Amino acid sequence: MPEAFSFEVTHRCGAARAGVLITPHGAIKTPAFAPVGTRGAVKSVTHRDLVGLGAQILLANTYHLHLRPGGDLVGRAGGLHDFIGWDRPILTDSGGYQVMSLSDLRKLTEKGVEFRSHIDGSKHMLTPERSMEIQRLLGSDIVMAFDECPRADRPRDEIAASMEMSMRWAQRSREGFNAGGEHAERSALFGIQQGALDEDLRKISADKLADIGFDGYAIGGLAVGEGQEAMFATLDFAPAQLPQDRPRYLMGVGKPDDLVGAVERGVDMFDCVLPSRSGRNGQAFTWNGPMNLRNARFAEDTDPLDNRCTCDTCNTYSRAYLHHLVKSQEILGAMLMTEHNIAFYQQLMQAMRDAIGEGRFATFAKDFRRDYLR
Amino acid sequence: MPEAFSFEVTHRCGAARAGVLITPHGAIKTPAFAPVGTRGAVKSVTHRDLVGLGAQILLANTYHLHLRPGGDLVGRAGGLHDFIGWDRPILTDSGGYQVMSLSDLRKLTEKGVEFRSHIDGSKHMLTPERSMEIQRLLGSDIVMAFDECPRADRPRDEIAASMEMSMRWAQRSREGFNAGGEHAERSALFGIQQGALDEDLRKISADKLADIGFDGYAIGGLAVGEGQEAMFATLDFAPAQLPQDRPRYLMGVGKPDDLVGAVERGVDMFDCVLPSRSGRNGQAFTWNGPMNLRNARFAEDTDPLDNRCTCDTCNTYSRAYLHHLVKSQEILGAMLMTEHNIAFYQQLMQAMRDAIGEGRFATFAKDFRRDYLR
Repeated sequence: MPEAFSFEVTHRCGAARAGVLITPHGAIKTPAFAPVGTRGAVKSVTHRDLVGLGAQILLANTYHLHLRPGGDLVGRAGGLHDFIGWDRPILTDSGGYQVMSLSDLRKLTEKGVEFRSHIDGSKHMLTPERSMEIQRLLGSDIVMAFDECPRADRPRDEIAASMEMSMRWAQRSREGFNAGGEHAERSALFGIQQGALDEDLRKISADKLADIGFDGYAIGGLAVGEGQEAMFATLDFAPAQLPQDRPRYLMGVGKPDDLVGAVERGVDMFDCVLPSRSGRNGQAFTWNGPMNLRNARFAEDTDPLDNRCTCDTCNTYSRAYLHHLVKSQEILGAMLMTEHNIAFYQQLMQAMRDAIGEGRFATFAKDFRRDYLR
Repeated sequence: MPEAFSFEVTHRCGAARAGVLITPHGAIKTPAFAPVGTRGAVKSVTHRDLVGLGAQILLANTYHLHLRPGGDLVGRAGGLHDFIGWDRPILTDSGGYQVMSLSDLRKLTEKGVEFRSHIDGSKHMLTPERSMEIQRLLGSDIVMAFDECPRADRPRDEIAASMEMSMRWAQRSREGFNAGGEHAERSALFGIQQGALDEDLRKISADKLADIGFDGYAIGGLAVGEGQEAMFATLDFAPAQLPQDRPRYLMGVGKPDDLVGAVERGVDMFDCVLPSRSGRNGQAFTWNGPMNLRNARFAEDTDPLDNRCTCDTCNTYSRAYLHHLVKSQEILGAMLMTEHNIAFYQQLMQAMRDAIGEGRFATFAKDFRRDYLR
């Protein structure tokens, strides 16, 4: 790990772990959840409110920022922290997942991915080396290796071949990252385990990544449609295959019950658009499960979204008002619902950290599921 | 005036006045600007931020709230303050203007206006009495008389006939309001002067309103397309026709230079959607004039929107980031731009109050126009 980084597991409770990841932009208590600021902004929440709600780290998307405003422009502005006015840690993905899911006319080769921008049709090439270069321009604290993420339901030999290529790309990512000069000394590079739902392929991937050597390890290729049962079955073995002394990051996950089940299986970090996207769609997450505020039964409900939640939305506003805002498509509805959802996610992470620290995670998880999945 | 209300002009400077309007939900320093929360929410700003930015009073629209969620529902929730979680003064319009501009199939008679909802086509009737009843259910602090507002370019006899009817409606509004029991004792009723650009008609209207007796007087029928020059020409005589000891409210105005020119002519209160609507469209108001953040020249501009502004947007973010957000249609762009615009409007009002208090309003207005209209 670069000197500016460290990771320490401070508590264990079954497979669950609590710890601290130190970065040049501050400490992150784990298990941690990163809200997603795709284009350098979380939808409908200000940075100051994110900080107030307990967000410790922001995820930004390399693919989107590369297309607009461009890595070079952000680099000239002094990096993403300066450009967007956020002084806490930033994690950037590699662009690999989104270039395959969002762009037009993709051509995948050993070299990388050729694609056309979904914004203006312009032609681009993303490779491990180029992804490292863009993430360096963005000044990311946690850089992700460039990988390919196939659907979990592809044939095993396809999954295996894709994983093998991702491991070669991981090596090239490591080399590209190391060539980044000063940035490589003050940022961390995470490798990404692939292999879909297959224990043997996951093990091969984990070993190859450990041989290359990364500052943290992501579990990729999950939450892509395989379902919670298959995801948990994979998490029963995948985290333990990764180095014990480094953070483990489950990308793009998930629902509150996904997070609890993944922490239970040894995951330390998460990111997901769900709290903000659901908030914009009128869905609130609460300790008693999700709640759709479009439902007419909330029209005169004077209770807060969640009695246990301490956010300003729950302290100030009734479900009736939120129902009115959501039905009227008022921007404030999206703002208040997102604020609550992000607050809830952060409170959930804090509750998990507390439960692990106090050696009672199993009871916490049981109680959580009793109330949340009722 | 009901006992819970009082208005005092504390300073005069030419025709400009500074004062304090006391309401049961708090004091309003005048000249004051009310952000517009059409459906009980200012678009893209939270209530707590509005308060932080200096908003002293919120305007809500009777027409919109009557159609959704309905005056009865808001009444059952304890009124608009409780329903929307806002504990400062609320001013509601009468619905008269919007029923004519927004609804379908309007039929205007001496009795009132019959119309169909623009939301679901349902049939409604709005009369002076019904408007008073709905505003009572909303628990408004400042209730507006029900009036008709014709276009200023209609023939004089039409303007005169409309004004005469509005004055009969003003009398019926007064009676309907007075019949409102306890609410009439803790809220104020404002009459609305009509007569378009005609000094004689405005005088007749003002005298009729004074005879009926109101707690404040609005100048209606302006900012409906007549242009700033004609508006100012009317404001050269209209405010002085109204009682000196009551607040004067110019409805639906306006641009920053409109506000300065109207205060200069004796207006005490304003409301307008402009700071929020413009913010959502990428336009910022600054001491150096309006600025369209869509413009490519801001792509790498590291300055804040306005060096003199003290809002969080100006303290934290660059024009380059705001340009990126606006171009990317990020909700955060609308939020930050609106926050700045409302902050700027409140800072402008404060600067006018200070200038009046210190007897230097003419210099202030001259300096303002030099920088703003350059």
